[in-house]
Amino acid sequence: MAGEAAVREQAETVRRLKQDKADPDEIAQEVAKLLEMKTQLGGDEGKHKFVLKTPKGTRDYSPKQMAIRERVFNAIISCFKRHGAEVIDTPVFELKETLTGKYGEDSKLIYDLKDQGGELLSLRYDLTVPFARYLAMNKITNIKRYHIAKVYRRDNPAMTRGRYREFYQCDFDIAGQFDPMIPDAECLKIVYEILSDLQLGDFLIKVNDRRILDGMFAVCGVPDSKFRMICSSVDKLDKMPWEEVRSEMVGEKGLSLEAADHIGEYVQLHGGLDLIERLLQDPKLSQNKLAKEGLGDMKLLFEYLTLFGITGKISFDLSLARGLDYYTGVIFEAVLLQQQNDHVEEPVGVGSVAGGGRYDGLVGMFDPKGRKVPCVGVSIGIERIFSILEQRVEASEEKIRTTETQVLVASAQKKLLEERLKLISELWDAGIKAEVLYKKNPKLLNQLQYCEDTGIPLVAIVGEQELKDGVVKLRDVATREEVNIRRESLVEEIRMRTSQP
Amino acid sequence: MAGEAAVREQAETVRRLKQDKADPDEIAQEVAKLLEMKTQLGGDEGKHKFVLKTPKGTRDYSPKQMAIRERVFNAIISCFKRHGAEVIDTPVFELKETLTGKYGEDSKLIYDLKDQGGELLSLRYDLTVPFARYLAMNKITNIKRYHIAKVYRRDNPAMTRGRYREFYQCDFDIAGQFDPMIPDAECLKIVYEILSDLQLGDFLIKVNDRRILDGMFAVCGVPDSKFRMICSSVDKLDKMPWEEVRSEMVGEKGLSLEAADHIGEYVQLHGGLDLIERLLQDPKLSQNKLAKEGLGDMKLLFEYLTLFGITGKISFDLSLARGLDYYTGVIFEAVLLQQQNDHVEEPVGVGSVAGGGRYDGLVGMFDPKGRKVPCVGVSIGIERIFSILEQRVEASEEKIRTTETQVLVASAQKKLLEERLKLISELWDAGIKAEVLYKKNPKLLNQLQYCEDTGIPLVAIVGEQELKDGVVKLRDVATREEVNIRRESLVEEIRMRTSQP
Repeated sequence: MAGEAAVREQAETVRRLKQDKADPDEIAQEVAKLLEMKTQLGGDEGKHKFVLKTPKGTRDYSPKQMAIRERVFNAIISCFKRHGAEVIDTPVFELKETLTGKYGEDSKLIYDLKDQGGELLSLRYDLTVPFARYLAMNKITNIKRYHIAKVYRRDNPAMTRGRYREFYQCDFDIAGQFDPMIPDAECLKIVYEILSDLQLGDFLIKVNDRRILDGMFAVCGVPDSKFRMICSSVDKLDKMPWEEVRSEMVGEKGLSLEAADHIGEYVQLHGGLDLIERLLQDPKLSQNKLAKEGLGDMKLLFEYLTLFGITGKISFDLSLARGLDYYTGVIFEAVLLQQQNDHVEEPVGVGSVAGGGRYDGLVGMFDPKGRKVPCVGVSIGIERIFSILEQRVEASEEKIRTTETQVLVASAQKKLLEERLKLISELWDAGIKAEVLYKKNPKLLNQLQYCEDTGIPLVAIVGEQELKDGVVKLRDVATREEVNIRRESLVEEIRMRTSQP
Repeated sequence: MAGEAAVREQAETVRRLKQDKADPDEIAQEVAKLLEMKTQLGGDEGKHKFVLKTPKGTRDYSPKQMAIRERVFNAIISCFKRHGAEVIDTPVFELKETLTGKYGEDSKLIYDLKDQGGELLSLRYDLTVPFARYLAMNKITNIKRYHIAKVYRRDNPAMTRGRYREFYQCDFDIAGQFDPMIPDAECLKIVYEILSDLQLGDFLIKVNDRRILDGMFAVCGVPDSKFRMICSSVDKLDKMPWEEVRSEMVGEKGLSLEAADHIGEYVQLHGGLDLIERLLQDPKLSQNKLAKEGLGDMKLLFEYLTLFGITGKISFDLSLARGLDYYTGVIFEAVLLQQQNDHVEEPVGVGSVAGGGRYDGLVGMFDPKGRKVPCVGVSIGIERIFSILEQRVEASEEKIRTTETQVLVASAQKKLLEERLKLISELWDAGIKAEVLYKKNPKLLNQLQYCEDTGIPLVAIVGEQELKDGVVKLRDVATREEVNIRRESLVEEIRMRTSQP
């Protein structure tokens, strides 16, 4: 099939040949070729064919995918509610300037709306900046909320690995001035609960602190002005070996070899309370105010995590940096660990499925008087989790129902459409989930097949005799057993048979 | 407060004075004025203040608003599920060309994304066109689905009346080749069920058919080429008196006076089966093939609606036109009727809260071979419903809980943070919804006050003595009763006391 670009190119060829007064035969040949290409493209130019696709990096969700997605959402939402969170919603776009200067190097990935007159708008890039805007705008200094919504990034999509341009974030944040590390610990508990509940296999939550990173950079001799830049390099350690990161620091970012090697020693460290204690004694780090503060809080955090009984899956990891500009304290990221999995032949690329941290300065950037509202939060990366579960379902041949219909209203004989409609109306009004085939005279076999295909467990069959006797024949699709039920008891009988144990 | 435009103007004044070599005192005076304006605007030019707002025509939802919104969604979703619908989701934006030519005059209201390289994209304008694109793309010829999502229209917002630029649509559609009017009747039953369930007061569902309208236009002498244009005028009859619509038809759209008056006679008609029968005998309409088809189907529809027992709230109304281009058969619209309402002083402007119809040609516009998939569907306009319920809640002083927390873990004495964290961790792990104040040593009074404020019904209090005795003091916030519960029975006790009856 010829593309539009190819047609334009061919038209250009024809134009040039004519201009050059080329051999008429050659011109005729190229014109014929052009006409054929146009035909392929959809008859005439004015009515070309639609490109039937979703925009790059996006996808539709089919009913089956939605059923899996809802399971995941339910697990996440019930965890957020278990922790007493309220819920808010914000518009999908914000004033462009609301997003400006919040995302560092990643700002180039923001989707802008076309200037059609009026305000300049951009699609939201995450839920954190809109949350901070919401707090400042409504002068809220104290809230625990969750927000589940789509965000937009003009990134290179890698759809099989669950990286999209339109994707859901599930955010839980605690805003307010509180005693140190209690909300931070709760965020980590939430990640632990959700990842355990979803049974995605073994996972690890890496924890660090921006203050420890900054202190480390200072004692390693990184100039203040290069902190954020070097932090971005460190952030790549989960995808690149140290040697490459090192040469980026030295080559691209102009760091001294000595400073880079010094950083290299620190960023390979990871552990638990023992490591924190050791670093608190580190002759250099212990002299740095920021690092000392960060390490002190890290120790307190681990004490709380011990009370929660979750330190087994937490690793204090000095190589964790996280890209976003706005973090000011604790940062963390949960990764799934590679594992043997009988169900999945090619395991989905293992990566980060949750992340978050403390951002005490962001709300202040929006407040006219710069008043700060300390915040800490976590974002669950639903798309990767969803990719894993979807592959697992595919592999297991588990049959997923996409409706909740309890009963199909059917008839064995002709001319009973009106009776079917009367009965289904009664069932709907009684709150029963019921369907009917939209045919005047459907065959009983087709009606039963529909139940098999869609997993409807019961069939209510009306016929001449049943109508006379004031009963309905109720058929169990799985066992094929049929029994006459008095019409006035039908609702109760269906409820009883389809109630979840 | 000086705006940026005013500052620019003042800067221009200063520039001009300098250029004109004006009196230095005058220049100095204007410069001072400029500097003051800049200060007001936020210190220096580089760091001007944020405009703290959501984009025009959009809003945030607070936790309280979300609680009301969720009630409405639950009513709607349970109705859609009762009727056996699956659920799908599509991206918030589509290729621009997917939306082109579907919305008639309203196309100018579509939000385009900025061309940042790559595909040209637009925000979805409704959920119907993306649904048709989804069907054609996946070659689906048979589905009953719902889709609840935000859509975008650059319309003039009227927020107090629930008209926004970003708003939810709740769509239910049936696609497939079926016997006539059975799915159409189900759509109307769904509107009836949802509006009854939400208890919004009295309502009326107006029904008409595009074929009847087109037949009517034909017999009134409207030229074929003006059908859609005159249809748009008729569509305004719910907001404008007939005289204005008539003069629009004649003046702006060049219709003959005679034709307009002829239309005027028809569009004042509304009724039920009797009116349908009368029009089937109408000497002119009965001679028009389209009108006859439409009236025949309308009769069948009313027979089914009679079986569903809902004709009391249905009106066959020849003035109903609906704006969108893609309808081909039955169309309908539900309006709330003005009423006495004790709660609301100024009732929300009464308007359409649901609408829909049959669109048999839309999927074919996307299919490369033009294969048609007949569709009929309904869209519930959640924002107006939400506005009404929100005002009702405000007026009634009903207290709406925004969390589901069952118990606050508290302590009466100091130094018990660790014990509180241990206990709450146990409760979370057992699935109890629990909160704790993020303070090392909160006062008991503050903890009880928090429960009062947020509606938490129970407090689990740990103290030195309770810890020794292996019990927790459980307090009922409403009655202030306190009773010691053995720690191992606490989860069961909380569950029992907070289970919904």
